[in-house]
Amino acid sequence: MTSSKKVTVGIDIGGTNTVFGLVDAQGNCLLQKAIKTTDYPLVEDFVSKVTKELKDLISTESNLEVVGMGIGAPNANYYTGTIEFAPNLKWEGIIPLTQLFSAHFNFPVFLTNDANAAAIGERIYGAAKGVNDFVMVTLGTGLGSGFVVNGDLVYGHDGFAGELGHTIVEKDGRACGCGRMGCLETYASASGIVRTAKELMQNNSNSALATLKELSSKSIADAALQGDALALEIFDYTAEKLGFSLANTVALTSPKLIVLFGGLAQSGDLILKPTKKHMEAYLLKIFKNKVAVVPSKLKAADAAILGASALAWQNI
Amino acid sequence: MTSSKKVTVGIDIGGTNTVFGLVDAQGNCLLQKAIKTTDYPLVEDFVSKVTKELKDLISTESNLEVVGMGIGAPNANYYTGTIEFAPNLKWEGIIPLTQLFSAHFNFPVFLTNDANAAAIGERIYGAAKGVNDFVMVTLGTGLGSGFVVNGDLVYGHDGFAGELGHTIVEKDGRACGCGRMGCLETYASASGIVRTAKELMQNNSNSALATLKELSSKSIADAALQGDALALEIFDYTAEKLGFSLANTVALTSPKLIVLFGGLAQSGDLILKPTKKHMEAYLLKIFKNKVAVVPSKLKAADAAILGASALAWQNI
Repeated sequence: MTSSKKVTVGIDIGGTNTVFGLVDAQGNCLLQKAIKTTDYPLVEDFVSKVTKELKDLISTESNLEVVGMGIGAPNANYYTGTIEFAPNLKWEGIIPLTQLFSAHFNFPVFLTNDANAAAIGERIYGAAKGVNDFVMVTLGTGLGSGFVVNGDLVYGHDGFAGELGHTIVEKDGRACGCGRMGCLETYASASGIVRTAKELMQNNSNSALATLKELSSKSIADAALQGDALALEIFDYTAEKLGFSLANTVALTSPKLIVLFGGLAQSGDLILKPTKKHMEAYLLKIFKNKVAVVPSKLKAADAAILGASALAWQNI
Repeated sequence: MTSSKKVTVGIDIGGTNTVFGLVDAQGNCLLQKAIKTTDYPLVEDFVSKVTKELKDLISTESNLEVVGMGIGAPNANYYTGTIEFAPNLKWEGIIPLTQLFSAHFNFPVFLTNDANAAAIGERIYGAAKGVNDFVMVTLGTGLGSGFVVNGDLVYGHDGFAGELGHTIVEKDGRACGCGRMGCLETYASASGIVRTAKELMQNNSNSALATLKELSSKSIADAALQGDALALEIFDYTAEKLGFSLANTVALTSPKLIVLFGGLAQSGDLILKPTKKHMEAYLLKIFKNKVAVVPSKLKAADAAILGASALAWQNI
């Protein structure tokens, strides 16, 4: 008789894409799949689809024993297992996500903020190995964050801690999906940088960006790498907002490390260097030249799944 | 033979005053004394004076056994026992305070941020009894803060966490003692509210405040209680800055409770109500109507000493 191999399911729900897979105890992502979150305006349809795909994945190998599921999602609550009022998802109100998944499986299901899940993954497998005080910042469609303090994730009293993307960086600034104005994620995110590009292009038609069919954080990064002045200015503008907010964040929890992850972070030094520069300029003296700003060390394709699965490993 | 009574020393160093005393294990402040911090431009003279006064206090009762000392001070570092670059103290650079006191006593000496000490005191004896996630805000000469997360104080990787007073609330705002511009404490503190009063009085000579010889948070509060419109406006202006910063803070650590302490907090509802109002207006939906803003429940005269002494009790 062959002994079975224990795995957990990791699911990462993003505003645009959802990825999920099976991860062993050593952090190897064995099998994975992706679907478009936006294709499922009804959460029930989404859960059915993911469940079907997962059951297919699980049946691919005969000796897998699934022992738990971890889900990372925006505006997710670890304590209640719900997604609540997520501005970047089509599902409105309060969504009892762990309950919906639990109905289909006989293993425990855990849910947290997608950025919290990424923070767990980064601490176990990535750039924050062994670091007890750090902040994970995910620069995706929105801006998520996960805080680790004294070695533990900060959930807050209600499970909703870590909403750096919804700290207000400009009073009466850009309209945010959350209904308020000037949230950091309207500036420092894949969508925020496109908004910045559109604003700054109005006064500058000489840029290579003016010839692009579609603006994205990737195409702006490509132009910046070619030395396009406007594209570089757009990155600097974005980094100033992010660096300012990080300086204020450092004053509160004094992390050793800030890890940047997600689409916009993939532009590497284009975002890391000016963010660090602006953060340092805004920092209180006692915090200067102490806090590293580094890119995630997790493989982008696996990172979100690893983080979510690590949540399950941590809890079972 | 009478058995001795164990006590710890609690010392609270403020920008203006320093208070110290002896506290028993039940949190009773047995003996206490105050001196002016500003009378001692040299830290060595300060330590000598406090040491002498403490030895006098200790000798007052024959059966006291002092088992430790806890010190709360601005810009203090728990890990290193130093005060570093404190903008509100005359002692410049890095001050090895626990070392200076240890030379005079044969019990262990612990140091932390004055607001962290207050937070410990509040959790053990005051408004945050049994609360695992809260923020302590001390509105004294400056603005200090102590964060408790998952039941533990947040020191940060370097021991300097909790500098809410030095988060920037207005870019290019008021000059701060720290050398930067627009720090929250230049608005929301006993000195900040006086600056606001002076600014707003320039356009308003009808206020009762115009007749005062000396402006202070107390005299502005007295005028507000009499219904003086300008004084009320000054409190609202102060509360808007504080409420805004608290809303951003809630988004990060999601506390159940925010406890206000210190001179300005003694104006009670004059500061509590508008702070809560503005904070709620700025909060992300998921945090609305969840976070209590309450006054400290520690007796003002003893609170700082209790907090500092609690640090010693916690560590011995």
